[in-house]
Amino acid sequence: MKVLITGFEPFGGEGVNPSWSAARLVAEARPCGFDTTAVRLSCVYGKAIAELRAAVADTGPDLVLCAGQAGGRTGLSVERVAVNVDDARIPDNAGNQPVDEPIVPGGPVAYLSSLPVKACVAAVREAGLPASVSGTAGNFLCNHVFYGLAHLIATERPGLRGGFVHVPYAPEQVVGKAEPSMSVQDIARGLAVIVETAARTTTDLGVPEGATH
Amino acid sequence: MKVLITGFEPFGGEGVNPSWSAARLVAEARPCGFDTTAVRLSCVYGKAIAELRAAVADTGPDLVLCAGQAGGRTGLSVERVAVNVDDARIPDNAGNQPVDEPIVPGGPVAYLSSLPVKACVAAVREAGLPASVSGTAGNFLCNHVFYGLAHLIATERPGLRGGFVHVPYAPEQVVGKAEPSMSVQDIARGLAVIVETAARTTTDLGVPEGATH
Amino acid sequence: MKVLITGFEPFGGEGVNPSWSAARLVAEARPCGFDTTAVRLSCVYGKAIAELRAAVADTGPDLVLCAGQAGGRTGLSVERVAVNVDDARIPDNAGNQPVDEPIVPGGPVAYLSSLPVKACVAAVREAGLPASVSGTAGNFLCNHVFYGLAHLIATERPGLRGGFVHVPYAPEQVVGKAEPSMSVQDIARGLAVIVETAARTTTDLGVPEGATH
Amino acid sequence: MKVLITGFEPFGGEGVNPSWSAARLVAEARPCGFDTTAVRLSCVYGKAIAELRAAVADTGPDLVLCAGQAGGRTGLSVERVAVNVDDARIPDNAGNQPVDEPIVPGGPVAYLSSLPVKACVAAVREAGLPASVSGTAGNFLCNHVFYGLAHLIATERPGLRGGFVHVPYAPEQVVGKAEPSMSVQDIARGLAVIVETAARTTTDLGVPEGATH
Repeated sequence: MKVLITGFEPFGGEGVNPSWSAARLVAEARPCGFDTTAVRLSCVYGKAIAELRAAVADTGPDLVLCAGQAGGRTGLSVERVAVNVDDARIPDNAGNQPVDEPIVPGGPVAYLSSLPVKACVAAVREAGLPASVSGTAGNFLCNHVFYGLAHLIATERPGLRGGFVHVPYAPEQVVGKAEPSMSVQDIARGLAVIVETAARTTTDLGVPEGATH
Repeated sequence: MKVLITGFEPFGGEGVNPSWSAARLVAEARPCGFDTTAVRLSCVYGKAIAELRAAVADTGPDLVLCAGQAGGRTGLSVERVAVNVDDARIPDNAGNQPVDEPIVPGGPVAYLSSLPVKACVAAVREAGLPASVSGTAGNFLCNHVFYGLAHLIATERPGLRGGFVHVPYAPEQVVGKAEPSMSVQDIARGLAVIVETAARTTTDLGVPEGATH
Repeated sequence: MKVLITGFEPFGGEGVNPSWSAARLVAEARPCGFDTTAVRLSCVYGKAIAELRAAVADTGPDLVLCAGQAGGRTGLSVERVAVNVDDARIPDNAGNQPVDEPIVPGGPVAYLSSLPVKACVAAVREAGLPASVSGTAGNFLCNHVFYGLAHLIATERPGLRGGFVHVPYAPEQVVGKAEPSMSVQDIARGLAVIVETAARTTTDLGVPEGATH
Repeated sequence: MKVLITGFEPFGGEGVNPSWSAARLVAEARPCGFDTTAVRLSCVYGKAIAELRAAVADTGPDLVLCAGQAGGRTGLSVERVAVNVDDARIPDNAGNQPVDEPIVPGGPVAYLSSLPVKACVAAVREAGLPASVSGTAGNFLCNHVFYGLAHLIATERPGLRGGFVHVPYAPEQVVGKAEPSMSVQDIARGLAVIVETAARTTTDLGVPEGATH
């Protein structure tokens, strides 16, 4: 099996992005011995999806796991749904700040993840790390790439499966702040567990993980 | 203009539901002098949508605002998107606990709100109360009713506009907890501002309110 | 019985300070019909205590309740202990920023409140508002005034009783932030309940309200 | 130099206590090559201080660092002040639940830490981990032991220096919860940095780290 894992370059004034630091470690660790490639995506609307599509074309993966930083979250958040809206609270790294623009004009309002999100969450917890299903990937680059991936799968790559995971800040990003964090080693360990679980699981677990609001 | 506003009965062991306490106050206050009806929905999957549909049929509204309790939120959350998934963390008031079931089999994955969500948020803030656009209404009864309303509008009532607002706990619900709350009077004031704003606004504001994650 | 209640002027770039907005309402409401005076203290090290001492000398109270803003807290926090340390994270309104300086050189490290803190918390909850005992009043003006009051009582006014209550942001201060708030009317109602409870209670309740950390 | 580091046994239904897991790692790592002993304290009022006193008598340390679990905190919290009050929100591991009892009858209301708390915080941050000065150690076993240590130093061991550090949950404790955590390896690394800093620093840094409330 071939696996593509992506992380993002830093944004918002941060010096690092733990999604990329961890993605590189996952590729080095080669979960289950899979041929795993890590690619760093730009934090730029449009360009990020183009880079993702190029990486898929280049590496021909069976499974794609995209990761992004979600400052303030306490564990790995396996995203359930990608929404067809860009709405940038802050400018991206090229200065773009789209507001309420569709990612794919005419595309469906949303896609559900093609990963077994609950099996992934259960496996990360089993490994001793906090995880949850998330109901929103936001409206910045993470949701943008997630939607781009889901649209690619739905329209051009029916055999491909893929999804998105948000990861907490690395400890070094919050040294003087009261914000939760997770070590990059633990983030990478959790992402590897998700790759392994998604690779072997096609039917998701029937356990409740929804939010009451 | 005719307005229908809904709240929910209490759930999860609570003695009150601030969405209903406030909805009643809004109907009594008659924002802009509109003919405003308040209806309390059951916290029961399926039944809640049936009650909503009956209330729409009975009152023939031009605008529907559904409200629900979102314990832990700090202000009014105007929901952007309804997702076609029931995934009940806790049983509803009839003991149902659907997991990953579609609300409308074959329906689209999601609908965007037909309310001007950013204009509504801006108006509530202008009135001195905290508000934000939310990217997920969860997977419990609130999202269920929101999706049911959006599907009704999309498939049967093209002239109707409507959306969903999550409200914080009332103070009495958190007396011994470290959870945020908002007085029912302020919740009602904010909901009335949303009704007034939605009634007079058809083009939303082009300001960023997206989440970075 | 004569009551003195104090609040602070705004600080930290805020346009209002809910402790003063509420203190004024309490004085107008005259809890239990008590002769109640509200005084606004400067947010300036040294000067604030001088103003408090002058107000005590002028009004000759039996009970003093000082209030201050604690942005981020969810309910009324009845402070248990005042510590003899100024350590200003931000400059006060006169530009002073003392670091690790004693409030009263040679004074004890700390004083416990002379109010029945648990009876006060129980009474506020009974009134339907969130409240808790707090184990730290910080190191800014609130703790400064609290310590100054406790030292005055301990060294010069043995018959006087008094304490400190932290209050949440007012809603208007958090319109665009994810921070908890409480309406000024509810803050005032809670402070009045504390005045009434402190006035009639000399032996505190023996219920646990400590923090595990 | 001889160092004594303590952690606690699990409490509150937890299977582990990260303060002890980390303390053991610190003793194995021998910061600066110091002769370092780790001792696990019982989560029992009275007994915990007795165990601490026995360990001090046995090992004759120059420096004592006590650590405890503070579920919900995001980084290492170097405690500034120990207060002479036991007030147990939950029973200890022997079923005791003292309410508003002095730890040392007739003892001072509080002691300040004899560690250079700000130098310790700065050093942990320099090592890439989140840390802060805390103004309250609560009223459970952590504050109890901290006060017992400070009283021992003040009354019997004038040459000894010591203090208390609260640590976050370990990741395994929060797998299904939205609570912050820190890896035990990182906790141990931070505690070792504190030992090294406290050993070489007698005059604290004059930087503001106080809380505004």
